[in-house]
Amino acid sequence: MSTSGEDNFIFDTIAIVGVGLIGGSLGMAAKRRHIVRRVVGIGRTEQKLMQAKLLGAIDEYSLDLETGASEADLVFVCPPVRNIIPTIEQMASGLKPGAIITDVGSTKSEIVGLAPVAIPESCSFIGGHPMTGSEQGGVEAAFPDLFVGARYVLTPDSETDLMALGKMTEFAEAIGSEVLLMSPEEHDKAAAIISHLPHAMSGALLEVAEIAQRESGKVFPMAAGSFRDLTRITDSTPEIWRDICLTNAGPLCEAIDALRDHLEIFKNIVAAHDEEGILRFFERAKAIRSTYLRITK
Amino acid sequence: MSTSGEDNFIFDTIAIVGVGLIGGSLGMAAKRRHIVRRVVGIGRTEQKLMQAKLLGAIDEYSLDLETGASEADLVFVCPPVRNIIPTIEQMASGLKPGAIITDVGSTKSEIVGLAPVAIPESCSFIGGHPMTGSEQGGVEAAFPDLFVGARYVLTPDSETDLMALGKMTEFAEAIGSEVLLMSPEEHDKAAAIISHLPHAMSGALLEVAEIAQRESGKVFPMAAGSFRDLTRITDSTPEIWRDICLTNAGPLCEAIDALRDHLEIFKNIVAAHDEEGILRFFERAKAIRSTYLRITK
Repeated sequence: MSTSGEDNFIFDTIAIVGVGLIGGSLGMAAKRRHIVRRVVGIGRTEQKLMQAKLLGAIDEYSLDLETGASEADLVFVCPPVRNIIPTIEQMASGLKPGAIITDVGSTKSEIVGLAPVAIPESCSFIGGHPMTGSEQGGVEAAFPDLFVGARYVLTPDSETDLMALGKMTEFAEAIGSEVLLMSPEEHDKAAAIISHLPHAMSGALLEVAEIAQRESGKVFPMAAGSFRDLTRITDSTPEIWRDICLTNAGPLCEAIDALRDHLEIFKNIVAAHDEEGILRFFERAKAIRSTYLRITK
Repeated sequence: MSTSGEDNFIFDTIAIVGVGLIGGSLGMAAKRRHIVRRVVGIGRTEQKLMQAKLLGAIDEYSLDLETGASEADLVFVCPPVRNIIPTIEQMASGLKPGAIITDVGSTKSEIVGLAPVAIPESCSFIGGHPMTGSEQGGVEAAFPDLFVGARYVLTPDSETDLMALGKMTEFAEAIGSEVLLMSPEEHDKAAAIISHLPHAMSGALLEVAEIAQRESGKVFPMAAGSFRDLTRITDSTPEIWRDICLTNAGPLCEAIDALRDHLEIFKNIVAAHDEEGILRFFERAKAIRSTYLRITK
Protein backbone atom coordinates (compact mmCIF):
# COMPACT_ATOMS: atom_id res chain seq x y z
CA MET A 1 0.00 0.00 0.00
CA SER A 2 1.44 3.37 -0.95
CA THR A 3 1.83 6.31 1.38
CA SER A 4 2.54 8.79 -1.40
CA GLY A 5 -0.44 11.04 -0.87
CA GLU A 6 -3.83 11.57 0.68
CA ASP A 7 -5.37 10.22 -2.49
CA ASN A 8 -4.85 6.69 -1.20
CA PHE A 9 -6.55 7.25 2.11
CA ILE A 10 -10.05 5.86 2.44
CA PHE A 11 -10.71 8.57 5.02
CA ASP A 12 -8.65 11.60 5.98
CA THR A 13 -9.47 11.70 9.70
CA ILE A 14 -11.17 9.06 11.80
CA ALA A 15 -12.22 9.40 15.42
CA ILE A 16 -12.54 6.48 17.81
CA VAL A 17 -14.69 6.90 20.90
CA GLY A 18 -13.59 4.35 23.48
CA VAL A 19 -10.04 3.24 22.70
CA GLY A 20 -10.07 -0.25 24.24
CA LEU A 21 -9.35 -3.60 22.63
CA ILE A 22 -11.58 -3.03 19.59
CA GLY A 23 -11.19 0.74 19.30
CA GLY A 24 -7.45 0.52 19.79
CA SER A 25 -7.09 -2.28 17.25
CA LEU A 26 -9.15 -0.28 14.73
CA GLY A 27 -6.76 2.65 15.12
CA MET A 28 -3.67 0.46 14.83
CA ALA A 29 -5.05 -1.36 11.80
CA ALA A 30 -5.96 1.90 10.03
CA LYS A 31 -2.58 3.47 10.73
CA ARG A 32 -0.51 0.40 9.90
CA ARG A 33 -2.28 0.00 6.59
CA HIS A 34 -2.14 3.73 5.75
CA ILE A 35 -5.81 3.90 4.94
CA VAL A 36 -6.40 7.05 7.00
CA ARG A 37 -4.24 10.12 7.53
CA ARG A 38 -5.06 10.75 11.15
CA VAL A 39 -6.67 8.91 14.09
CA VAL A 40 -8.21 10.89 16.96
CA GLY A 41 -8.94 9.00 20.16
CA ILE A 42 -11.76 10.14 22.41
CA GLY A 43 -12.24 9.06 26.00
CA ARG A 44 -12.72 10.18 29.55
CA THR A 45 -9.39 9.16 31.06
CA GLU A 46 -6.36 11.08 29.82
CA GLN A 47 -3.97 8.43 31.06
CA LYS A 48 -5.62 5.72 28.98
CA LEU A 49 -5.60 7.94 25.91
CA MET A 50 -1.92 8.72 26.45
CA GLN A 51 -1.25 5.02 26.64
CA ALA A 52 -3.22 4.46 23.42
CA LYS A 53 -1.09 7.10 21.73
CA LEU A 54 2.12 5.52 23.01
CA LEU A 55 0.97 2.15 21.69
CA GLY A 56 0.38 3.64 18.25
CA ALA A 57 -3.39 3.25 18.28
CA ILE A 58 -4.11 6.97 17.84
CA ASP A 59 -2.27 10.12 16.71
CA GLU A 60 -3.92 12.54 19.08
CA TYR A 61 -6.73 12.59 21.55
CA SER A 62 -9.51 14.60 23.08
CA LEU A 63 -11.40 14.33 26.33
CA ASP A 64 -14.31 16.13 24.73
CA LEU A 65 -16.69 14.20 22.51
CA GLU A 66 -17.90 17.12 20.41
CA THR A 67 -14.45 18.59 19.78
CA GLY A 68 -12.80 15.24 19.25
CA ALA A 69 -15.30 14.10 16.66
CA SER A 70 -15.64 17.46 14.89
CA GLU A 71 -12.99 16.87 12.22
CA ALA A 72 -13.63 13.21 11.61
CA ASP A 73 -14.87 11.80 8.33
CA LEU A 74 -15.58 8.50 10.06
CA VAL A 75 -16.40 8.08 13.75
CA PHE A 76 -16.23 4.68 15.46
CA VAL A 77 -18.47 4.55 18.54
CA CYS A 78 -17.06 1.75 20.70
CA PRO A 79 -18.55 2.05 24.22
CA PRO A 80 -20.70 -0.78 25.65
CA VAL A 81 -23.96 -1.27 23.83
CA ARG A 82 -26.26 0.86 25.99
CA ASN A 83 -23.87 3.84 25.93
CA ILE A 84 -23.74 4.02 22.16
CA ILE A 85 -26.85 6.13 21.54
CA PRO A 86 -26.12 8.57 24.43
CA THR A 87 -22.58 8.95 23.06
CA ILE A 88 -23.84 9.69 19.58
CA GLU A 89 -26.35 12.21 20.93
CA GLN A 90 -23.62 14.00 22.85
CA MET A 91 -21.33 14.45 19.88
CA ALA A 92 -24.05 15.02 17.29
CA SER A 93 -23.93 18.83 17.22
CA GLY A 94 -20.18 18.81 16.62
CA LEU A 95 -20.20 16.39 13.69
CA LYS A 96 -18.78 17.46 10.34
CA PRO A 97 -21.28 17.49 7.46
CA GLY A 98 -20.99 14.28 5.47
CA ALA A 99 -19.37 12.35 8.31
CA ILE A 100 -20.10 8.65 8.63
CA ILE A 101 -20.88 7.34 12.10
CA THR A 102 -20.55 3.65 12.87
CA ASP A 103 -20.63 1.57 16.04
CA VAL A 104 -19.28 -1.81 17.11
CA GLY A 105 -22.13 -2.79 19.44
CA SER A 106 -23.14 -6.42 19.97
CA THR A 107 -26.83 -5.77 19.24
CA LYS A 108 -28.09 -3.77 16.32
CA SER A 109 -31.85 -3.25 15.95
CA GLU A 110 -32.23 -0.72 18.75
CA ILE A 111 -29.10 1.21 17.77
CA VAL A 112 -29.83 1.23 14.04
CA GLY A 113 -33.34 2.45 14.82
CA LEU A 114 -32.24 5.33 17.03
CA ALA A 115 -28.86 6.45 15.68
CA PRO A 116 -29.97 8.04 12.37
CA VAL A 117 -32.42 10.25 14.27
CA ALA A 118 -29.69 11.36 16.66
CA ILE A 119 -27.25 12.65 14.03
CA PRO A 120 -27.49 15.63 11.66
CA GLU A 121 -29.21 14.92 8.35
CA SER A 122 -26.01 15.47 6.40
CA CYS A 123 -24.34 12.60 8.25
CA SER A 124 -24.82 8.86 7.73
CA PHE A 125 -25.03 6.04 10.21
CA ILE A 126 -23.88 2.49 9.46
CA GLY A 127 -24.44 -0.14 12.15
CA GLY A 128 -21.47 -2.45 12.55
CA HIS A 129 -20.31 -5.44 14.57
CA PRO A 130 -16.86 -6.88 14.05
CA MET A 131 -17.07 -10.54 15.14
CA THR A 132 -13.85 -10.54 17.04
CA GLY A 133 -12.46 -9.53 20.40
CA SER A 134 -15.01 -8.29 22.82
CA GLU A 135 -16.13 -5.05 24.36
CA GLN A 136 -13.90 -5.95 27.27
CA GLY A 137 -10.18 -5.63 27.49
CA GLY A 138 -8.12 -2.51 27.32
CA VAL A 139 -5.91 -1.00 24.67
CA GLU A 140 -2.99 -3.06 26.08
CA ALA A 141 -4.57 -6.06 24.37
CA ALA A 142 -5.13 -4.27 21.05
CA PHE A 143 -3.23 -5.29 17.93
CA PRO A 144 -3.49 -4.25 14.28
CA ASP A 145 -4.37 -7.70 12.93
CA LEU A 146 -7.34 -8.29 15.23
CA PHE A 147 -9.71 -8.08 12.25
CA VAL A 148 -7.74 -10.19 9.80
CA GLY A 149 -9.88 -13.10 8.66
CA ALA A 150 -12.75 -12.05 10.93
CA ARG A 151 -16.29 -11.36 9.78
CA TYR A 152 -17.31 -7.70 10.04
CA VAL A 153 -21.10 -7.44 10.07
CA LEU A 154 -22.62 -4.23 8.65
CA THR A 155 -26.34 -3.79 9.12
CA PRO A 156 -27.84 -1.41 6.55
CA ASP A 157 -31.57 -0.85 6.44
CA SER A 158 -33.81 0.81 3.85
CA GLU A 159 -32.68 4.29 4.98
CA THR A 160 -28.96 3.60 4.71
CA ASP A 161 -26.84 5.80 2.43
CA LEU A 162 -25.23 3.44 -0.07
CA MET A 163 -22.16 5.63 -0.64
CA ALA A 164 -21.46 5.57 3.09
CA LEU A 165 -22.05 1.83 3.19
CA GLY A 166 -19.59 1.41 0.32
CA LYS A 167 -16.88 3.42 2.08
CA MET A 168 -17.41 1.62 5.35
CA THR A 169 -17.19 -1.71 3.51
CA GLU A 170 -13.96 -0.57 1.88
CA PHE A 171 -12.53 0.31 5.29
CA ALA A 172 -13.56 -3.01 6.88
CA GLU A 173 -12.03 -4.96 4.00
CA ALA A 174 -8.87 -2.88 4.09
CA ILE A 175 -8.23 -3.90 7.70
CA GLY A 176 -8.45 -7.53 6.65
CA SER A 177 -11.99 -8.51 7.56
CA GLU A 178 -14.72 -10.01 5.44
CA VAL A 179 -17.90 -7.94 5.33
CA LEU A 180 -21.21 -9.67 6.01
CA LEU A 181 -24.26 -7.56 5.18
CA MET A 182 -27.30 -8.34 7.31
CA SER A 183 -30.41 -6.49 8.33
CA PRO A 184 -30.30 -5.39 11.99
CA GLU A 185 -33.01 -7.95 12.75
CA GLU A 186 -31.17 -10.77 11.00
CA HIS A 187 -28.05 -9.84 12.92
CA ASP A 188 -29.80 -9.79 16.27
CA LYS A 189 -31.51 -13.11 15.72
CA ALA A 190 -28.25 -14.75 14.68
CA ALA A 191 -26.31 -13.11 17.52
CA ALA A 192 -28.93 -14.32 20.00
CA ILE A 193 -28.35 -17.89 18.85
CA ILE A 194 -24.59 -17.99 18.42
CA SER A 195 -23.56 -15.73 21.27
CA HIS A 196 -26.25 -14.58 23.71
CA LEU A 197 -27.91 -17.99 24.11
CA PRO A 198 -24.54 -19.68 24.82
CA HIS A 199 -23.97 -17.18 27.63
CA ALA A 200 -27.40 -17.93 29.08
CA MET A 201 -26.77 -21.69 28.77
CA SER A 202 -23.45 -21.36 30.46
CA GLY A 203 -24.91 -19.41 33.37
CA ALA A 204 -27.78 -21.88 33.77
CA LEU A 205 -25.38 -24.84 33.71
CA LEU A 206 -23.33 -23.24 36.48
CA GLU A 207 -26.49 -22.82 38.58
CA VAL A 208 -27.39 -26.48 38.12
CA ALA A 209 -23.86 -27.58 39.00
CA GLU A 210 -23.65 -25.29 42.00
CA ILE A 211 -26.79 -26.77 43.57
CA ALA A 212 -25.40 -30.29 43.15
CA GLN A 213 -22.00 -29.16 44.42
CA ARG A 214 -23.61 -27.79 47.58
CA GLU A 215 -25.29 -31.17 48.15
CA SER A 216 -22.28 -33.45 47.67
CA GLY A 217 -19.16 -31.29 47.50
CA LYS A 218 -17.83 -33.58 44.78
CA VAL A 219 -19.31 -32.14 41.62
CA PHE A 220 -16.80 -29.38 40.95
CA PRO A 221 -13.77 -31.55 41.79
CA MET A 222 -15.01 -34.03 39.18
CA ALA A 223 -15.63 -31.47 36.47
CA ALA A 224 -13.05 -31.44 33.72
CA GLY A 225 -12.97 -30.80 29.95
CA SER A 226 -16.51 -30.28 28.76
CA PHE A 227 -17.71 -28.38 31.82
CA ARG A 228 -14.70 -26.11 31.66
CA ASP A 229 -15.30 -25.46 27.94
CA LEU A 230 -18.97 -24.72 28.38
CA THR A 231 -18.52 -22.27 31.23
CA ARG A 232 -15.46 -20.37 30.02
CA ILE A 233 -17.54 -17.57 28.51
CA THR A 234 -19.01 -16.56 31.86
CA ASP A 235 -15.69 -14.93 32.69
CA SER A 236 -17.05 -11.92 30.76
CA THR A 237 -18.14 -8.67 32.40
CA PRO A 238 -21.69 -9.03 33.81
CA GLU A 239 -22.63 -5.42 33.04
CA ILE A 240 -21.84 -5.88 29.37
CA TRP A 241 -23.98 -8.99 29.21
CA ARG A 242 -26.82 -7.36 31.07
CA ASP A 243 -26.88 -4.62 28.45
CA ILE A 244 -26.68 -7.04 25.56
CA CYS A 245 -29.65 -9.00 26.95
CA LEU A 246 -31.64 -5.83 27.58
CA THR A 247 -31.15 -4.65 24.01
CA ASN A 248 -31.90 -8.04 22.46
CA ALA A 249 -34.55 -9.46 24.75
CA GLY A 250 -36.99 -10.66 22.08
CA PRO A 251 -34.57 -12.70 19.94
CA LEU A 252 -32.81 -14.04 23.04
CA CYS A 253 -36.06 -15.29 24.59
CA GLU A 254 -36.98 -16.95 21.30
CA ALA A 255 -33.58 -18.62 21.15
CA ILE A 256 -33.99 -19.92 24.71
CA ASP A 257 -37.39 -21.36 23.76
CA ALA A 258 -35.92 -23.04 20.71
CA LEU A 259 -33.14 -24.59 22.76
CA ARG A 260 -35.63 -25.77 25.37
CA ASP A 261 -37.67 -27.46 22.66
CA HIS A 262 -34.66 -29.32 21.26
CA LEU A 263 -33.52 -30.37 24.74
CA GLU A 264 -37.03 -31.58 25.46
CA ILE A 265 -37.09 -33.69 22.30
CA PHE A 266 -33.73 -35.17 23.24
CA LYS A 267 -34.85 -35.81 26.81
CA ASN A 268 -37.88 -37.74 25.59
CA ILE A 269 -35.69 -39.86 23.33
CA VAL A 270 -33.35 -40.61 26.24
CA ALA A 271 -36.22 -41.35 28.63
CA ALA A 272 -37.63 -43.78 26.06
CA HIS A 273 -34.19 -45.46 25.71
CA ASP A 274 -34.51 -44.86 21.98
CA GLU A 275 -31.05 -46.08 20.88
CA GLU A 276 -31.46 -45.02 17.27
CA GLY A 277 -32.81 -41.59 18.24
CA ILE A 278 -29.96 -40.88 20.66
CA LEU A 279 -27.37 -41.98 18.12
CA ARG A 280 -28.98 -39.78 15.46
CA PHE A 281 -28.90 -36.79 17.82
CA PHE A 282 -25.15 -37.07 18.36
CA GLU A 283 -24.49 -37.87 14.70
CA ARG A 284 -26.44 -34.79 13.65
CA ALA A 285 -24.58 -32.63 16.18
CA LYS A 286 -21.26 -33.83 14.84
CA ALA A 287 -22.36 -33.27 11.23
CA ILE A 288 -23.72 -29.78 11.90
CA ARG A 289 -20.54 -28.88 13.75
CA SER A 290 -18.40 -29.92 10.79
CA THR A 291 -20.58 -27.94 8.39
CA TYR A 292 -20.11 -24.95 10.67
CA LEU A 293 -16.34 -25.43 10.82
CA ARG A 294 -16.17 -25.78 7.03
CA ILE A 295 -18.06 -22.50 6.58
CA THR A 296 -16.06 -20.47 9.10
CA LYS A 297 -12.58 -21.78 8.49
CA MET B 1 10.44 -45.25 43.83
CA SER B 2 12.77 -48.22 44.15
CA THR B 3 12.90 -51.10 41.71
CA SER B 4 14.88 -53.35 44.00
CA GLY B 5 12.29 -56.08 44.35
CA GLU B 6 8.74 -57.22 44.00
CA ASP B 7 8.07 -56.05 47.49
CA ASN B 8 7.60 -52.54 46.19
CA PHE B 9 5.04 -53.46 43.58
CA ILE B 10 1.46 -52.64 44.42
CA PHE B 11 0.43 -55.50 42.14
CA ASP B 12 2.49 -58.20 40.52
CA THR B 13 0.56 -58.54 37.26
CA ILE B 14 -2.10 -56.26 35.89
CA ALA B 15 -4.19 -56.85 32.78
CA ILE B 16 -5.69 -54.13 30.66
CA VAL B 17 -8.63 -54.97 28.43
CA GLY B 18 -8.81 -52.35 25.66
CA VAL B 19 -5.43 -50.69 25.28
CA GLY B 20 -6.48 -47.31 23.89
CA LEU B 21 -5.82 -43.82 25.26
CA ILE B 22 -6.83 -44.63 28.83
CA GLY B 23 -5.80 -48.27 28.92
CA GLY B 24 -2.47 -47.52 27.25
CA SER B 25 -1.76 -44.63 29.61
CA LEU B 26 -2.59 -46.82 32.61
CA GLY B 27 -0.02 -49.35 31.42
CA MET B 28 2.61 -46.71 30.74
CA ALA B 29 2.03 -45.03 34.09
CA ALA B 30 2.24 -48.33 36.00
CA LYS B 31 5.42 -49.42 34.21
CA ARG B 32 7.14 -46.04 34.39
CA ARG B 33 6.49 -45.81 38.10
CA HIS B 34 7.45 -49.42 38.76
CA ILE B 35 4.32 -50.12 40.72
CA VAL B 36 3.58 -53.38 38.89
CA ARG B 37 5.91 -56.11 37.65
CA ARG B 38 4.07 -56.98 34.49
CA VAL B 39 1.35 -55.51 32.25
CA VAL B 40 -0.70 -57.78 30.01
CA GLY B 41 -2.70 -56.12 27.25
CA ILE B 42 -5.88 -57.77 26.01
CA GLY B 43 -7.65 -56.88 22.79
CA ARG B 44 -9.09 -58.17 19.57
CA THR B 45 -6.59 -56.73 17.08
CA GLU B 46 -3.07 -58.10 17.24
CA GLN B 47 -1.63 -55.17 15.33
CA LYS B 48 -2.92 -52.68 17.90
CA LEU B 49 -1.57 -54.76 20.75
CA MET B 50 1.82 -54.99 19.05
CA GLN B 51 1.82 -51.23 18.71
CA ALA B 52 0.91 -50.88 22.41
CA LYS B 53 3.85 -53.11 23.27
CA LEU B 54 6.20 -51.12 21.05
CA LEU B 55 5.03 -47.91 22.74
CA GLY B 56 5.81 -49.37 26.16
CA ALA B 57 2.22 -49.56 27.34
CA ILE B 58 2.23 -53.32 27.91
CA ASP B 59 4.80 -56.11 28.34
CA GLU B 60 2.88 -58.84 26.61
CA TYR B 61 -0.54 -59.39 25.15
CA SER B 62 -3.29 -61.85 24.57
CA LEU B 63 -6.15 -61.99 22.11
CA ASP B 64 -8.08 -64.15 24.51
CA LEU B 65 -9.88 -62.54 27.42
CA GLU B 66 -9.90 -65.55 29.74
CA THR B 67 -6.26 -66.44 29.21
CA GLY B 68 -5.05 -62.85 29.23
CA ALA B 69 -6.73 -62.02 32.51
CA SER B 70 -5.97 -65.34 34.22
CA GLU B 71 -2.73 -64.28 35.93
CA ALA B 72 -3.71 -60.73 36.76
CA ASP B 73 -4.02 -59.40 40.30
CA LEU B 74 -5.76 -56.30 38.94
CA VAL B 75 -7.77 -56.15 35.73
CA PHE B 76 -8.69 -52.82 34.10
CA VAL B 77 -11.77 -53.13 31.91
CA CYS B 78 -11.58 -50.24 29.45
CA PRO B 79 -14.04 -50.85 26.60
CA PRO B 80 -16.95 -48.44 25.96
CA VAL B 81 -19.49 -48.38 28.74
CA ARG B 82 -22.01 -50.90 27.40
CA ASN B 83 -19.32 -53.49 26.64
CA ILE B 84 -17.96 -53.52 30.18
CA ILE B 85 -20.34 -56.05 31.73
CA PRO B 86 -20.21 -58.45 28.71
CA THR B 87 -16.41 -58.23 28.86
CA ILE B 88 -16.35 -59.05 32.56
CA GLU B 89 -18.74 -61.95 32.04
CA GLN B 90 -16.54 -63.40 29.33
CA MET B 91 -13.37 -63.40 31.38
CA ALA B 92 -14.99 -64.30 34.72
CA SER B 93 -14.27 -68.03 34.67
CA GLY B 94 -10.57 -67.42 34.06
CA LEU B 95 -10.02 -64.92 36.87
CA LYS B 96 -7.44 -65.66 39.55
CA PRO B 97 -8.85 -66.00 43.09
CA GLY B 98 -8.44 -62.70 44.93
CA ALA B 99 -8.15 -60.64 41.76
CA ILE B 100 -9.50 -57.10 41.75
CA ILE B 101 -11.54 -56.05 38.72
CA THR B 102 -12.04 -52.38 37.97
CA ASP B 103 -13.45 -50.44 35.01
CA VAL B 104 -13.03 -46.95 33.63
CA GLY B 105 -16.59 -46.45 32.34
CA SER B 106 -18.27 -43.05 32.24
CA THR B 107 -21.38 -44.22 34.09
CA LYS B 108 -21.33 -46.31 37.22
CA SER B 109 -24.65 -47.37 38.78
CA GLU B 110 -25.52 -50.00 36.20
CA ILE B 111 -21.98 -51.41 36.09
CA VAL B 112 -21.47 -51.42 39.87
CA GLY B 113 -24.82 -53.17 40.23
CA LEU B 114 -24.03 -55.94 37.73
CA ALA B 115 -20.28 -56.50 37.91
CA PRO B 116 -20.03 -58.11 41.39
CA VAL B 117 -22.58 -60.72 40.34
CA ALA B 118 -20.61 -61.51 37.18
CA ILE B 119 -17.29 -62.33 38.87
CA PRO B 120 -16.29 -65.23 41.16
CA GLU B 121 -16.96 -64.68 44.85
CA SER B 122 -13.25 -64.66 45.65
CA CYS B 123 -12.73 -61.62 43.41
CA SER B 124 -13.59 -57.98 44.11
CA PHE B 125 -15.02 -55.32 41.87
CA ILE B 126 -14.24 -51.62 42.29
CA GLY B 127 -16.03 -49.20 39.94
CA GLY B 128 -13.73 -46.47 38.67
CA HIS B 129 -13.75 -43.42 36.43
CA PRO B 130 -10.57 -41.45 35.84
CA MET B 131 -11.69 -37.90 34.95
CA THR B 132 -9.30 -37.46 32.09
CA GLY B 133 -8.90 -38.38 28.48
CA SER B 134 -11.89 -40.11 27.00
CA GLU B 135 -12.93 -43.52 25.80
CA GLN B 136 -11.90 -42.35 22.36
CA GLY B 137 -8.45 -42.09 20.96
CA GLY B 138 -5.99 -44.87 20.39
CA VAL B 139 -2.85 -45.92 22.16
CA GLU B 140 -0.88 -43.50 19.93
CA ALA B 141 -2.28 -40.72 22.12
CA ALA B 142 -1.46 -42.48 25.41
CA PHE B 143 1.16 -41.08 27.77
CA PRO B 144 2.26 -42.03 31.30
CA ASP B 145 1.33 -38.71 32.90
CA LEU B 146 -2.27 -38.65 31.69
CA PHE B 147 -3.49 -39.11 35.27
CA VAL B 148 -1.19 -36.66 37.01
CA GLY B 149 -3.27 -34.07 38.83
CA ALA B 150 -6.53 -35.61 37.59
CA ARG B 151 -9.36 -36.82 39.79
CA TYR B 152 -9.84 -40.59 39.81
CA VAL B 153 -13.35 -41.42 40.99
CA LEU B 154 -13.83 -44.77 42.75
CA THR B 155 -17.39 -45.80 43.50
CA PRO B 156 -17.61 -48.29 46.36
CA ASP B 157 -20.98 -49.39 47.67
CA SER B 158 -21.97 -51.26 50.82
CA GLU B 159 -20.75 -54.59 49.33
CA THR B 160 -17.30 -53.36 48.40
CA ASP B 161 -14.25 -55.12 49.83
CA LEU B 162 -12.30 -52.46 51.74
CA MET B 163 -8.91 -54.12 51.24
CA ALA B 164 -9.47 -54.09 47.48
CA LEU B 165 -10.61 -50.47 47.65
CA GLY B 166 -7.46 -49.61 49.57
CA LYS B 167 -5.17 -51.23 47.02
CA MET B 168 -7.01 -49.65 44.12
CA THR B 169 -6.71 -46.27 45.84
CA GLU B 170 -3.01 -46.85 46.32
CA PHE B 171 -2.63 -47.61 42.62
CA ALA B 172 -4.60 -44.55 41.51
CA GLU B 173 -2.56 -42.29 43.75
CA ALA B 174 0.70 -43.87 42.65
CA ILE B 175 -0.02 -42.89 39.02
CA GLY B 176 -0.44 -39.30 40.15
CA SER B 177 -4.18 -38.89 40.47
CA GLU B 178 -6.30 -37.78 43.37
CA VAL B 179 -8.92 -40.29 44.46
CA LEU B 180 -12.49 -39.11 44.90
CA LEU B 181 -14.78 -41.63 46.63
CA MET B 182 -18.40 -41.38 45.60
CA SER B 183 -21.34 -43.73 45.60
CA PRO B 184 -22.25 -44.90 42.08
CA GLU B 185 -25.42 -42.81 42.27
CA GLU B 186 -23.56 -39.69 43.38
CA HIS B 187 -21.11 -40.19 40.55
CA ASP B 188 -23.81 -40.62 37.93
CA LYS B 189 -25.74 -37.57 39.07
CA ALA B 190 -22.61 -35.44 39.04
CA ALA B 191 -21.45 -36.84 35.70
CA ALA B 192 -24.88 -36.13 34.21
CA ILE B 193 -24.49 -32.49 35.19
CA ILE B 194 -20.87 -31.79 34.39
CA SER B 195 -20.47 -33.95 31.32
CA HIS B 196 -23.58 -35.56 29.84
CA LEU B 197 -25.79 -32.47 30.07
CA PRO B 198 -23.13 -30.30 28.36
CA HIS B 199 -23.12 -32.75 25.46
CA ALA B 200 -26.90 -32.57 25.21
CA MET B 201 -26.78 -28.75 25.39
CA SER B 202 -24.17 -28.61 22.71
CA GLY B 203 -26.19 -30.82 20.39
CA ALA B 204 -29.37 -28.83 20.98
CA LEU B 205 -27.53 -25.54 20.34
CA LEU B 206 -26.27 -26.88 17.03
CA GLU B 207 -29.84 -27.83 16.05
CA VAL B 208 -31.08 -24.33 16.86
CA ALA B 209 -28.24 -22.73 14.92
CA GLU B 210 -28.66 -25.02 11.95
CA ILE B 211 -32.30 -24.08 11.51
CA ALA B 212 -31.41 -20.37 11.56
CA GLN B 213 -28.47 -21.00 9.22
CA ARG B 214 -30.78 -22.66 6.72
CA GLU B 215 -33.04 -19.59 6.81
CA SER B 216 -30.43 -16.86 6.37
CA GLY B 217 -27.13 -18.52 5.46
CA LYS B 218 -25.35 -15.99 7.66
CA VAL B 219 -25.50 -17.58 11.10
CA PHE B 220 -22.52 -19.91 10.83
CA PRO B 221 -20.28 -17.32 9.14
CA MET B 222 -20.97 -14.99 12.09
CA ALA B 223 -20.30 -17.58 14.78
CA ALA B 224 -17.00 -17.15 16.55
CA GLY B 225 -15.62 -17.70 20.07
CA SER B 226 -18.48 -18.71 22.33
CA PHE B 227 -20.29 -20.84 19.75
CA ARG B 228 -17.09 -22.64 18.88
CA ASP B 229 -16.36 -23.26 22.58
CA LEU B 230 -19.82 -24.58 23.32
CA THR B 231 -19.95 -26.98 20.41
CA ARG B 232 -16.42 -28.39 20.51
CA ILE B 233 -17.44 -31.42 22.56
CA THR B 234 -19.75 -32.72 19.83
CA ASP B 235 -16.67 -33.87 17.93
CA SER B 236 -16.86 -36.99 20.15
CA THR B 237 -17.90 -40.41 18.88
CA PRO B 238 -21.73 -40.62 18.68
CA GLU B 239 -21.82 -44.32 19.63
CA ILE B 240 -19.97 -43.64 22.88
CA TRP B 241 -22.41 -40.89 23.79
CA ARG B 242 -25.40 -43.00 22.89
CA ASP B 243 -24.19 -45.63 25.33
CA ILE B 244 -23.46 -43.12 28.07
CA CYS B 245 -26.97 -41.68 27.74
CA LEU B 246 -28.55 -45.13 27.71
CA THR B 247 -26.77 -46.13 30.91
CA ASN B 248 -27.48 -42.85 32.69
CA ALA B 249 -30.92 -41.91 31.40
CA GLY B 250 -32.51 -41.00 34.73
CA PRO B 251 -29.89 -38.57 36.03
CA LEU B 252 -29.44 -37.07 32.57
CA CYS B 253 -33.17 -36.39 32.17
CA GLU B 254 -33.21 -34.79 35.62
CA ALA B 255 -30.24 -32.61 34.72
CA ILE B 256 -31.96 -31.49 31.50
CA ASP B 257 -35.05 -30.57 33.53
CA ALA B 258 -32.95 -28.58 35.99
CA LEU B 259 -31.24 -26.69 33.19
CA ARG B 260 -34.57 -25.98 31.55
CA ASP B 261 -35.89 -24.54 34.82
CA HIS B 262 -32.89 -22.21 35.20
CA LEU B 263 -33.10 -21.09 31.59
CA GLU B 264 -36.80 -20.45 32.06
CA ILE B 265 -36.16 -18.29 35.12
CA PHE B 266 -33.54 -16.35 33.19
CA LYS B 267 -35.84 -15.97 30.18
CA ASN B 268 -38.56 -14.49 32.36
CA ILE B 269 -36.11 -12.02 33.86
CA VAL B 270 -34.97 -10.98 30.38
CA ALA B 271 -38.53 -10.74 29.05
CA ALA B 272 -39.38 -8.48 32.00
CA HIS B 273 -36.32 -6.30 31.28
CA ASP B 274 -35.33 -6.86 34.90
CA GLU B 275 -31.93 -5.11 34.87
CA GLU B 276 -31.01 -6.14 38.39
CA GLY B 277 -32.05 -9.73 37.82
CA ILE B 278 -30.05 -10.07 34.59
CA LEU B 279 -26.99 -8.54 36.20
CA ARG B 280 -27.30 -10.90 39.17
CA PHE B 281 -27.53 -13.89 36.82
CA PHE B 282 -24.24 -13.05 35.12
CA GLU B 283 -22.58 -12.06 38.38
CA ARG B 284 -23.58 -15.38 39.94
CA ALA B 285 -22.35 -17.29 36.88
CA LYS B 286 -18.98 -15.56 37.12
CA ALA B 287 -18.76 -16.19 40.86
CA ILE B 288 -19.74 -19.87 40.57
CA ARG B 289 -17.22 -20.31 37.78
CA SER B 290 -14.42 -18.89 39.92
CA THR B 291 -15.38 -21.10 42.85
CA TYR B 292 -15.23 -24.04 40.46
CA LEU B 293 -11.83 -23.00 39.12
CA ARG B 294 -10.50 -22.54 42.66
CA ILE B 295 -11.63 -26.04 43.63
CA THR B 296 -10.28 -27.82 40.55
CA LYS B 297 -6.99 -26.04 40.03
